Amino acid sequence: MPKRNAIYAQSGGVTAVINATACGLIEAASSHRDLIGKVLAGRNGIIGVLREELIDTSKESRSTIQRLRDTPGGAFGSCRYKLSNPTPDDPDIRRLFEVFAAHDVGYFFYNGGGDSQDTANKVSKLSQELDYPVQCIGIPKTVDNDLSGTDSCPGFGSVAKYVAISTKEAALDVASMSESSTKVFILEVMGRHAGWIAAAGGLAGEDANEPPHLILFPEVPFDESSFLRKVESTVKRIGYCVVVASEGVQNSDGNFLADAGTKDAFGHAQLGGVAPVLAGLVKEALGLKYHYAVADYLQRSSRHIASKVDVEQAYAVGKGAIAAVAAGQNDVMIGIKRLQDEPYRWRLAPINLNKVANIERKVPRSFRTKDEYGITARARRYLEPLIRGEAYPLYRRGMPRYAETKNQLVAKKLPGYDV
Amino acid sequence: MPKRNAIYAQSGGVTAVINATACGLIEAASSHRDLIGKVLAGRNGIIGVLREELIDTSKESRSTIQRLRDTPGGAFGSCRYKLSNPTPDDPDIRRLFEVFAAHDVGYFFYNGGGDSQDTANKVSKLSQELDYPVQCIGIPKTVDNDLSGTDSCPGFGSVAKYVAISTKEAALDVASMSESSTKVFILEVMGRHAGWIAAAGGLAGEDANEPPHLILFPEVPFDESSFLRKVESTVKRIGYCVVVASEGVQNSDGNFLADAGTKDAFGHAQLGGVAPVLAGLVKEALGLKYHYAVADYLQRSSRHIASKVDVEQAYAVGKGAIAAVAAGQNDVMIGIKRLQDEPYRWRLAPINLNKVANIERKVPRSFRTKDEYGITARARRYLEPLIRGEAYPLYRRGMPRYAETKNQLVAKKLPGYDV
Repeated sequence: MPKRNAIYAQSGGVTAVINATACGLIEAASSHRDLIGKVLAGRNGIIGVLREELIDTSKESRSTIQRLRDTPGGAFGSCRYKLSNPTPDDPDIRRLFEVFAAHDVGYFFYNGGGDSQDTANKVSKLSQELDYPVQCIGIPKTVDNDLSGTDSCPGFGSVAKYVAISTKEAALDVASMSESSTKVFILEVMGRHAGWIAAAGGLAGEDANEPPHLILFPEVPFDESSFLRKVESTVKRIGYCVVVASEGVQNSDGNFLADAGTKDAFGHAQLGGVAPVLAGLVKEALGLKYHYAVADYLQRSSRHIASKVDVEQAYAVGKGAIAAVAAGQNDVMIGIKRLQDEPYRWRLAPINLNKVANIERKVPRSFRTKDEYGITARARRYLEPLIRGEAYPLYRRGMPRYAETKNQLVAKKLPGYDV
Repeated sequence: MPKRNAIYAQSGGVTAVINATACGLIEAASSHRDLIGKVLAGRNGIIGVLREELIDTSKESRSTIQRLRDTPGGAFGSCRYKLSNPTPDDPDIRRLFEVFAAHDVGYFFYNGGGDSQDTANKVSKLSQELDYPVQCIGIPKTVDNDLSGTDSCPGFGSVAKYVAISTKEAALDVASMSESSTKVFILEVMGRHAGWIAAAGGLAGEDANEPPHLILFPEVPFDESSFLRKVESTVKRIGYCVVVASEGVQNSDGNFLADAGTKDAFGHAQLGGVAPVLAGLVKEALGLKYHYAVADYLQRSSRHIASKVDVEQAYAVGKGAIAAVAAGQNDVMIGIKRLQDEPYRWRLAPINLNKVANIERKVPRSFRTKDEYGITARARRYLEPLIRGEAYPLYRRGMPRYAETKNQLVAKKLPGYDV
């Protein structure tokens, strides 16, 4: 089999461990020199591929690649760009295959969420239609954990760990101050449509009196009076109340609470997040002193407290993607299969991309307590293994030593293309 | 010298390491059994002392006390309560000395910021006036680092480390996404009147192109057009812009930006923080996509990434407080003296409480760059040693094992007292 080059592209929001996947893939590729020439990384993801901006990862030192395992963010850049109409006539698709041909690309690795798996699937089908052979492999990545076809998704375990620990730590702070000061603390976390990250906040405590006292899931319509009653009774019972809220919490009419009409100083609607809205309700209706935090990008880039299991899985799916092409596989996603909860055991499980439905996997009813404000024992059995272990980066003078890639591009061979 | 009991009270906002101070104090006291009987901790700080709610720390196991060194928040509770009028006739003061007498208290340790040092000083003076001998020792604590009489303040180094790391990590995320998505990221940090915490964000990068690109200090009046110009030019030059903003940023007329008239869904003024206001400006004037995070309590409770130097200093001031009373000292604060920047060396330096001025120590002009948006080499020399080293807590099943104190109260001997 002649040696061909590979293209690797990161897609969508980055995570604390997506570079660990790149590390696994690039390291494994170097053990298949007979099969795989260069690993070219799309600069800023698929838009870099279309622009023929291809990073030559062989120009990075071995230690830089190694350190990618410990580095958050997307070292080669990522983007939110959907190949809108993957047909042979679509200009983007034509261009994609022109780039493949110009750089003798025989392997396409797309590292992202549901959309990316869908795209990888379509590119694989088009490769047959266009009679240009390319093995397409989807590699899972999303902090939201909403991807089907895999038991868990690299990126999620580390956000989950960050949110669980942050909830626990902030709760200790609030508990200390609540007698004379803050009574209600709200932590806003990611999760527009699926509440996996919020659910992970539940790992901060073990019984109903331990924080968090309320988790607000996007899966559950927000009930203002029930919420306020629960906050009030919690404060009465134990002196304070900790809330973990998904950014995607919605009213019963399906509108995001975060869009509930907050106006900024100029009178413009402000997409401000759900925490200030909830805090406003608490202050208004209950007159309780509140504090809130918005974790935003901190949660998905917090490599300093990444889950060891998550790092291992992220690395493994990258390595597994190379093993898949070496085994002649095509049109698969490198999923993760759980073999056992306790002790936790898992293995890679490539799944045909046709079977990776492009739907968001939500937090099931059985994972939420009867009152919809907590997580069940079943949810804990699922979530807990994913936050296990610490995988600390190296430090120098108090700061983590994250990889700095050179991102040197290979020479272009095609005319320009506007994306 | 007859053996007498001690009262220890935590005051004001808690930190990631104030319990390390409690740990140092309680452990050191146990080596002076001839001098010190029980260490009684005020439940929720000074209000617990006034209510005669005194926690018997001897009821905690040795391992619980040990683990306090690794536990954020205030294990015995804290409060914001100022002894308003420390004169012999003030009811609070009379009560305080009644409690001292009822429990044979000969040592009073007050662990807090400027107000607490002032109170410790006044209680010491009143002890002579009232002819009730009690040795009063102030122990420094504040995340804001605004306390005079000490080179640095336990609690600050850990927030500084958290903010520097979070800035670096989030910046890697933004850099990855900026080509097609978020261009401006704003991290709001604590610091109402002094910008030490924001300054620490500057440690995330080393030159002008490295994030953070702008630091907003409360010491510097906010100049909207200059801010917007700098954000715009940074985005033009390197594709994205990271801002670290003190919650206390003020307009030139001295009003907090955070109070700039944001209205919630009900039309009420919302004390929302400075990040949404800045984000609104960026969106309005420059049309750039933004994200923001509000670290709030997460920053001051983030024991999981505490600075080792900070933990050591917090422990040392607790231990030093006991050494001070054993040496017969009174009316002093256990300050920290820097002997050398590099390699960093320091020692404890008790300072007379009369000399601890109750003023907020601000970030000096020489620590801020000419354009007022960055930190100087001099600031780095001061800040860097304070974030050095990691002091990880123990973990079990993915979560830190923080101490849980029993907080058992000693029997009351006095009539009730309303606080």
